[in-house]
This record gives sequence, C-alpha cells and structure tokens, in this order.
Amino acid sequence: MGNANEPVVNLISKPENMLKTIYTACRTCYSADYPINIYKNAVDEEKMLKLIERVIGSGHFSTIEHIQVTFAISNVSRACTHQLVRHRHMSFSQKSQRYVKEKGQFDYIIPPTVEKNPEILEKYKKFMEFTSNFYTEMTEAGIPAEDARFVLPNAAASSLVTSLNLRELIHLAHIRLCTRAQYEIRIMVKKMCEELTKEEPWLKKYLVPKCESLGYCDEDKSCGRKKTKAEFLKEPAQV
Amino acid sequence: MGNANEPVVNLISKPENMLKTIYTACRTCYSADYPINIYKNAVDEEKMLKLIERVIGSGHFSTIEHIQVTFAISNVSRACTHQLVRHRHMSFSQKSQRYVKEKGQFDYIIPPTVEKNPEILEKYKKFMEFTSNFYTEMTEAGIPAEDARFVLPNAAASSLVTSLNLRELIHLAHIRLCTRAQYEIRIMVKKMCEELTKEEPWLKKYLVPKCESLGYCDEDKSCGRKKTKAEFLKEPAQV
Amino acid sequence: MGNANEPVVNLISKPENMLKTIYTACRTCYSADYPINIYKNAVDEEKMLKLIERVIGSGHFSTIEHIQVTFAISNVSRACTHQLVRHRHMSFSQKSQRYVKEKGQFDYIIPPTVEKNPEILEKYKKFMEFTSNFYTEMTEAGIPAEDARFVLPNAAASSLVTSLNLRELIHLAHIRLCTRAQYEIRIMVKKMCEELTKEEPWLKKYLVPKCESLGYCDEDKSCGRKKTKAEFLKEPAQV
Amino acid sequence: MGNANEPVVNLISKPENMLKTIYTACRTCYSADYPINIYKNAVDEEKMLKLIERVIGSGHFSTIEHIQVTFAISNVSRACTHQLVRHRHMSFSQKSQRYVKEKGQFDYIIPPTVEKNPEILEKYKKFMEFTSNFYTEMTEAGIPAEDARFVLPNAAASSLVTSLNLRELIHLAHIRLCTRAQYEIRIMVKKMCEELTKEEPWLKKYLVPKCESLGYCDEDKSCGRKKTKAEFLKEPAQV
Repeated sequence: MGNANEPVVNLISKPENMLKTIYTACRTCYSADYPINIYKNAVDEEKMLKLIERVIGSGHFSTIEHIQVTFAISNVSRACTHQLVRHRHMSFSQKSQRYVKEKGQFDYIIPPTVEKNPEILEKYKKFMEFTSNFYTEMTEAGIPAEDARFVLPNAAASSLVTSLNLRELIHLAHIRLCTRAQYEIRIMVKKMCEELTKEEPWLKKYLVPKCESLGYCDEDKSCGRKKTKAEFLKEPAQV
Repeated sequence: MGNANEPVVNLISKPENMLKTIYTACRTCYSADYPINIYKNAVDEEKMLKLIERVIGSGHFSTIEHIQVTFAISNVSRACTHQLVRHRHMSFSQKSQRYVKEKGQFDYIIPPTVEKNPEILEKYKKFMEFTSNFYTEMTEAGIPAEDARFVLPNAAASSLVTSLNLRELIHLAHIRLCTRAQYEIRIMVKKMCEELTKEEPWLKKYLVPKCESLGYCDEDKSCGRKKTKAEFLKEPAQV
Repeated sequence: MGNANEPVVNLISKPENMLKTIYTACRTCYSADYPINIYKNAVDEEKMLKLIERVIGSGHFSTIEHIQVTFAISNVSRACTHQLVRHRHMSFSQKSQRYVKEKGQFDYIIPPTVEKNPEILEKYKKFMEFTSNFYTEMTEAGIPAEDARFVLPNAAASSLVTSLNLRELIHLAHIRLCTRAQYEIRIMVKKMCEELTKEEPWLKKYLVPKCESLGYCDEDKSCGRKKTKAEFLKEPAQV
Repeated sequence: MGNANEPVVNLISKPENMLKTIYTACRTCYSADYPINIYKNAVDEEKMLKLIERVIGSGHFSTIEHIQVTFAISNVSRACTHQLVRHRHMSFSQKSQRYVKEKGQFDYIIPPTVEKNPEILEKYKKFMEFTSNFYTEMTEAGIPAEDARFVLPNAAASSLVTSLNLRELIHLAHIRLCTRAQYEIRIMVKKMCEELTKEEPWLKKYLVPKCESLGYCDEDKSCGRKKTKAEFLKEPAQV
C-alpha cells in the first residue's frame, strides 16, 4: 500500500545501564580511582544524573559518545533518506534498490501539501501507478533492477537500520527538529527522540531544536520560536 | 537536454607541492629534525617518491591524508549520488532539489541497458517528459519545490562539489572501480582518478580496484579478474 | 603501588541481542520486509550467524557498526594511551593530568625489558620515586597540577573509558595484535578482545592480527608468522 | 637546547583559489548551473566573500570543509600533543619516540609558572638533565628506544605535521583559544590561526574563542570575557 504516510520508528537496541556508563566516563576524567571501581560503586541515580547534567550543560559532549542506540525505520521517502545519510557520524544499513526488485505497486510517501490538494492527490496516485507499471515493464523486458530503479521517484518508501551515539542524536535533534528542516525528516527524528525518551526520560531536555539549546535562532530568518542571534545580542545593550 | 550520459568531472583544487607535503609528513615520524626544515630541504623528487611508495606500500596511509583534492561533478543521477554520499570521509556540497526548482525538462541519466533497448528507450524518454510535465503542474498548483520533487526519479541529474583526501580516494577507487559497483559510479570514480593522475601520474598504481591491491578478490564471487581469496589461499598448499 | 604491570581491562557495556541487531541490519539491505519485522522474527541463532559470517567475510563491515562496546581500562602507560587515542573512530574519557593531582607515589608501568635488567630496574624505580618527589615539591611550591605534570614520565599509569564499534574493534585487533605493535598496547587490545569473546565467542575468528585476515604480512618485513605480500604473490607463479 | 619555549608553527600547504572553491561549493547547492561553470565564472572577490560570510554566519559549515590546510609544528610538549591528537577530524604525522632515539639532552618545554620560580626552574633544568642521562644509560644498556622513552617526561618536545579543514580549524579555535585551555595549546592554535590569516585575512572573524561566536560563555564559570549563558539568558527578561 502506498498511502502509509508516517515514518515507522522503533528503538531496537540500547546499552544496559546507560546512566552508569556515562557517569563512569564523566568521573574517570576527574578521579584517581579506577573506572571499574567507579562503575561498580555507582548506585545513586540522582547523584549520577546531577553530574551528567552538569557535564552535558558545559558542552563536554564526548562523555555521551559511550552510548549508542539503534533504530529500525520504515516508510520514509528516498528524499528523506538522501538527507539522513548525510549525517556522517551515523551508521546505516538501508534497503537496496539495486538488489531488492519491487513487486507490484511500490510503497510511496505523500507529502501533506499533496494530501491537501484533491486534484493533485488524484494525479499523484495515478502517477505512482503509472511509474510502477513502467518499472515492471522494464524489468520484464530484461532491464536489471539496478537500472529499472532509475524511474523510481524520490517518493518511493525506504527502510533502514541506523545507529548513532547520544552526542550525534542531540546534534540530529538540533538540526532536524528545526522548523526549517524538511517535514518528513522532522517527524522521523521526533519519533526517534520519543522512542528513546520513553525509556530514558532524563534525555528530553537535550533532544530539542538548536534554538532551544542556543537561546536564539542562528538561521538567517527565525520561524518565530526564538529571536535571531542578531536581535538577541542587541537586546542587552538596549537595557 | 536529457541525453547527456556521461558524468562530467573536473579537478578544481589540489594543494601545491603535493609530493613535498607527503614526504615531510613521512619523514617527520622518523626524524629528529624540525618538519619545517625537512620541508625546506626537500628537493630530490626521485628520493621523495621512493620513500612515499615504501610508506604507502606498507599500508601506512595516514601520511597521505595531508593531501585533499576537490572535484566539480555534474550529470550524475541521484541514484549515483545517494551511493556516493555514503562515503563518510568525504565532504559534499550538492545541488538541492528543495531549493532549486526545475524549469522545463529536467536533465536525466539513461543507463546503457536502456540505451540499448530501442522500445524501452522511447518509453523512458516519454516517461521523463511526462514526469517533468507533472512536476511543473504541481509547482504551478502551489506545491512547493521540496514536495513536488517527490515525483522526480532517481534518473534526475545532479551536480556536486566534493573533497576527499588521498587515503579516501584510494579507498573509493578500491570499492567503486570494482566490477560489482554500479556502472555510473564506476565511470565517475574512474574520471576522478584520471583527472588527478593527469597531473600526478605517480598515483596511478594506487588508484585501482581492491583486488589489484589485495592480490585476490574478497567478494563472494569474482568477476574473473582475480581469483577469490579462498581459491588464492588454497593454491600455495597445492604446490 | 607502581609495579602493577598488566593493563586492567573490563567490558562494562554492550548492547543486548547483538546477533539479532546485526542480522536485522544485514537482512534489511536485501529484503522488502520492514526491519522491525525482521528483528521480531529473528530467532534461529545458527541461521543468523551464518548470514553474518558471509557478510563480514565479504568485507561488508558497515553492518557491524551497529554494535558498540565499552571498556574500562586502567594501569596503562601514557605512552600507550597516546597511541590509543590516535584511533579516531573510538570515543575516550581519560583521567586528566591537568585536573587530577597525584598524591604520593604515582602509579607507573615497567616495560619487560626493564623488568629483566636488575640494575636498570633498581634505578628505574628510584627514578620514579625521585620524579614523584619533585612533582610534589612543585605542587607544594604553588605550581599548578597542569604544569607540574610536565615532569611526569610516559611510564605514568592512566585510566580511561573507551567505546568503539565492532568494525573498529576488528581494525584495532588487525593493527595492534600485530607483532610490530608496542608490547603494552598489544596486551591491552588482546585483553579487550578476550573480555568480549568470553561473551560473544563467535567473534574470535575476526579479532586477529591483520596477516591472519589478509593471508599474508603487508609490512616491510614479516615477523615470520606469515609470508610477506611480495613472497606470497610470487608463489603461485612458481608452481 | 631545552629552553626554546614557544611552539614553532608554519603553514606549509593550502589550496590555491580558496575563495573560489568555497564560493563554488556554496553556489552549487542553490544553482541549476554546473559547478565547473560557477567556478570558471567566479571572479568578483567581493561578491564571493559576501556569500561565504552569509553561509558561514548561518552555521552551514559543510561548505568550508573543501579547504584543507597543513601546518608543520615543532617545540610543543608531549602534554600538548596528547591533547591535540584528540581532535579526531584532524590528520597527524608525529615524530615517534619509538623510532627516533634521543641523542644527548632532549628538547623540552618549560611552562611559564616554572619559568617564573627561579628555585623550581633551576631544579627543573637539572631534572631534565638527570632524566636525559638516565635515558642514555638505559639505551646504552640495551633497552630499546621504545622502552627507554618510558622515562621521558610530558615536557619532552615533539614535532608534527597536521592537516585540518576550515570547519575543524574554526572548531579548534573555539575550543582551544578559550581561556580554560592549556596555555601551550592556546599559543599553538593562536599561531596556526595567525599563519593562515596572514594570507587569508577574511578568516580572522571566525578564528575566535567560542564565546565570541556564541555571544556568551557556555562553561560553568566565565573567565570574565563574556557573561555565562545563564546570566545572559536571564538578562532580556530583566529588562
């Protein structure tokens, strides 16, 4: 079915004892004790959380690289994944259009602007059907899947497994939860953050668009959520 | 025009004194002398080349990271660039389908297997025209370019500027000059290598498919150019 | 105490369901199914292992980046850690000599060649005592720890927490289990591999020096374990 | 001689046409034109500079990764280089203490706090002489250089060749020009920036400590140059 329009995101792997591992990393830098002892003696969750928040708050992000999480993602367009794979600190295993031949109508994504325009929507669906038929005709004529896919559109749905550490996840949230980001990657990253914070609620405050972290918007124009940097830096002087 | 079928590749930037820089890096590791003195005294090209070849030959690739080169590339499909941007040690600035609205027929790539099938080729061209018309209809109906692009096919031509260091270029050649690689990225990487070796011919011997470097094919099945690893390792025992 | 001479290595974190995660990543590339379904249906351990071995065997290492493991390490010299932190795909949190002031005799490492020479060993220990006393004198004279540490030797013991994915661990084993590697980092990496293979024995065959993986030694001179590449490539021709 | 106390920093390589390359990368993202044409038509320096400043100003740093520069550095302590090599986006070729045997008194760095304390300074110099003699005694007794170096102090001078792209250089300046950074790496990075801005003065405004870029200090405590983030964010509300 081609009308499934929301990314499907599942957290499939994270390390046990996330807090303990980060806490041990933070303390190792400032302690004469062996890290294995720090680890074994780490029991007070509140104390751990307090240290971690201070360390992350000061921008010392290397300590949270020790946590890597893995997501299974489906129902995202190739337009979206072409952007996603530009994040060079992430690991990806993506469904290959070279090796996986589409059978019948391929899944595709419908952007909300198309969804809202009945006339265009109708034609959009027919276009996908038409494309699907031509794809099938090509493969039946002996064109290999890796070449037949040249007619598949950006809308074609893809699946992938991706892993990233907490530092990169915070960066991803900063960039892709921004109103300027493409709507689809914004929803996908929002779901990734939600999947994780369901289990690790203390992370919520870090998984925000960059303006929330900076205190201002560093883009040319603000969406209105925060003042631009130029406006913001001017303000104190006006007092 | 949609029938331009070869990637356009130009080397637009490389450092001056490539050999001297690599030589200085190699010698710095093993010398009590200041690197700036090594650099200033490096004049004998043959001697430099000899050292560099020994160092690269032993797999000590970090010394060639000091050389970064930049290519301007056009006329490659989005299918090809989606693969290319998976190389996480490279830097990319790519034409955006979100911000650049296509005007008239978009450029597209025709795979050789399509080129060779007159009936499919005819339909392929009509498909591209049809897609172009629908794209234009969408944008004229107020669909923003970033959503209208959902109908653009993998065949759509893209442009990019990419930079990579020599270590990554050798890796890229190893992986993408392999017969298993997609035909288009193979041609593109071949042209990148040729552009550079025109000016730095000493690099030719390193810019080869991985089997030439390994001595055997490490894929499941060989294309025939080299024996597979399994066959190769068996051989000496058969003597 | 300064005479503890073996690195202390403990695995403190790894993801649950390592096999299932890698298997899901491998299958996602070649399957029309959603990765979350692949994950849920992955139960046959033998089948998973078989696929994973084929994928790693073909050099497609990106699928094992999804597994990251974390080690707590102590009792390694700063000479050793200066080498270790050159691995740029690893994450590190290391005991800081700027922030942690040594109290009393600092821990230090004794290389085996020193251990075996009684006269030098005696002087080595006195040297460490002498250095420790001067360090204390400096800090008592008001020199900040970050400057007093300028007299601390490479032998000074350090501690760190480090994380790396399986791809990097295999690379680390290839490079640092090689006979050419410094003895201390070789022992440390050996222990890291042992810690992990205790729990994941299927990894043993990949955590080997590079010559075992390549089939030959690619260094200038071989330690004797394998023929050099030049010798090896010549052999079949001699048949 | 051991009393040379300033890092020696020389820029040995940069690409020609830095501005043109960055400009071409920026324009490629937003243009229908081929990048090679953009490159050939780029002549108006003022116009190029204006676009580049807007792009960097908006935090879109990937476009400046296309420029990599190389420095030859000497007379820095191993304490300093152990910090420097933690920058994982940089490339390093460093003088090896395993392979280069020290002959006679090794070069060493004297921190300013030691320099200012005549009594400690006197002992510091004697300590270095004593250490040098013991090192020599060890190597003469047959201890290999790679083990004898265990007595060499953090103060021992090192040399290296390092390359990094402009994005990383700006990051390096942000972190290491900060008052909190170790004095020696601060001087070294300052010299790197000066070497480059002598030839590319337009870069000056970006090669600043992070507080200048952020508008506030994001450390726990400010050195006084800028308000802390907490103080800064409170201010507008106080108006």
